[in-house]
Amino acid sequence: MSGAAADRLLAAMDAAGAPACVGLDPVLSRLPERVHQGDPAAAIEVFCLGALEAIVGVVGVVKPQSACFERYGSAGVAALERVSRRAREMGFFVILDAKRGDIGSTAEHYAAFAYDAIGADAVTVNPYLGFDTLEPFLREDRAIFALVRTSNPGSDAVQSPGLAGGGTVAERVARGVAELGASRTGECGWSDVGAVVAATKPEDAARLREVMPKQIFLVPGFGAQGGTVETVRPLFAGGRGAVINASRSVLYPDQGPGGPGGDWRADLRAAAETFASEARAAASAS
Amino acid sequence: MSGAAADRLLAAMDAAGAPACVGLDPVLSRLPERVHQGDPAAAIEVFCLGALEAIVGVVGVVKPQSACFERYGSAGVAALERVSRRAREMGFFVILDAKRGDIGSTAEHYAAFAYDAIGADAVTVNPYLGFDTLEPFLREDRAIFALVRTSNPGSDAVQSPGLAGGGTVAERVARGVAELGASRTGECGWSDVGAVVAATKPEDAARLREVMPKQIFLVPGFGAQGGTVETVRPLFAGGRGAVINASRSVLYPDQGPGGPGGDWRADLRAAAETFASEARAAASAS
Repeated sequence: MSGAAADRLLAAMDAAGAPACVGLDPVLSRLPERVHQGDPAAAIEVFCLGALEAIVGVVGVVKPQSACFERYGSAGVAALERVSRRAREMGFFVILDAKRGDIGSTAEHYAAFAYDAIGADAVTVNPYLGFDTLEPFLREDRAIFALVRTSNPGSDAVQSPGLAGGGTVAERVARGVAELGASRTGECGWSDVGAVVAATKPEDAARLREVMPKQIFLVPGFGAQGGTVETVRPLFAGGRGAVINASRSVLYPDQGPGGPGGDWRADLRAAAETFASEARAAASAS
Repeated sequence: MSGAAADRLLAAMDAAGAPACVGLDPVLSRLPERVHQGDPAAAIEVFCLGALEAIVGVVGVVKPQSACFERYGSAGVAALERVSRRAREMGFFVILDAKRGDIGSTAEHYAAFAYDAIGADAVTVNPYLGFDTLEPFLREDRAIFALVRTSNPGSDAVQSPGLAGGGTVAERVARGVAELGASRTGECGWSDVGAVVAATKPEDAARLREVMPKQIFLVPGFGAQGGTVETVRPLFAGGRGAVINASRSVLYPDQGPGGPGGDWRADLRAAAETFASEARAAASAS
């Protein structure tokens, strides 16, 4: 049913009470000492399962970073399969951050990877190959988030140049994304075709929101990358329509009150609670 | 050593006597009947290993399509690991077609996937996030091919718009790719930073070759997608600097002389020989 995934995503955020998503970007060298031992793929899996237990109820959405698992090959992908499945069982809405993109028949294979093999509710996709290449990712009760404006400084080189007909490359992409998703809105009024719009480019936020009025924005770059409550505010529309993501600032918080012998899951939960409050504040002030 | 992968790629093509690459895009429903049985991941692995045996000596380069394996999750990725390792053992230059792209730290994980987990010599990457995001893929004795101009009709929507400063989006990307690779040329004079430029966009070929004089072009779209000897000719420079790819037309040729009971590997080898002749003809006429 068109729009059903957008409805589920909003329901997951409402249930947790915050427009917040925790990115699962497990990096071996940053894991708590007690987790960081043995096989790397097993260690990142244990860490992610522990993180899910820690944040359940605090946020309703998680975003596993496919690359962090893929780097360990088939063993890493097997860990991703289990982490994703467990997250869905626990009631999280799961956005696989895979930034896939390829021409038609190959895009179908990538959709099968994200939705069937990994079991994600949504996947991030790259639109450089054209909007027709995103269609194979459109599936009943699944959502996509197309890259429009990314958080890194170097993205300006490709996304910011002005077009002869007016607007920037990112705005041209935004228009294509809006058209693709126009007929796919749910009961909530938002579309199953969302967009990645970074927290670090506030100068573009109002314009992109104007071009994409029905797109839920997945917003990276909050926290460690410099995005703040102020910079994400204009990405909301009436307090809705955005999912703020934080990864490193939640997964690897500064030492908690327990000190080196403390409970890393308690520290992580406290960091998630702080983050959820900030996301809530950004939405309510928008 | 900078440029070493470009040198190895050209040597692999010279040894086989053709600027040709066979794409390993195993699709279950198209496999020969005797291979298409049992576990899907096992079937595509058996098919690819058979294809490698069939084409060795005819072409020197293979391009496994990551998506075709990933769709079967960890089992598929395990098959990809083994197919890629076997291909390198047999002397093929292996280009992993994965079209990855993400910001810095995540791009490093994807590079580890392509080079360490899968063991590829080169990987295709997507430049939409900016040229800084391609740098983590630059590794000694490894090459990248950045998407510049892709073969599908819908790619025009993003790659063809004209910029206010002149040129198209694809040309802007081409300039960034050329700058990234300028200092990474090998003894052969070509760069470890290559570009994907489709066989189906001959109107753009001369201009892109001009902007990217040191880039080896990986050329999809030949055969099944409509590219011909005529359309790929302008992508070469003095008979060098391009790798023509064919996937479906080689992997799934029309019934060979052996009929339904014939040897599929012989049919595949014959198709590879025809394709290699065409690629050779395109280069020599350029």
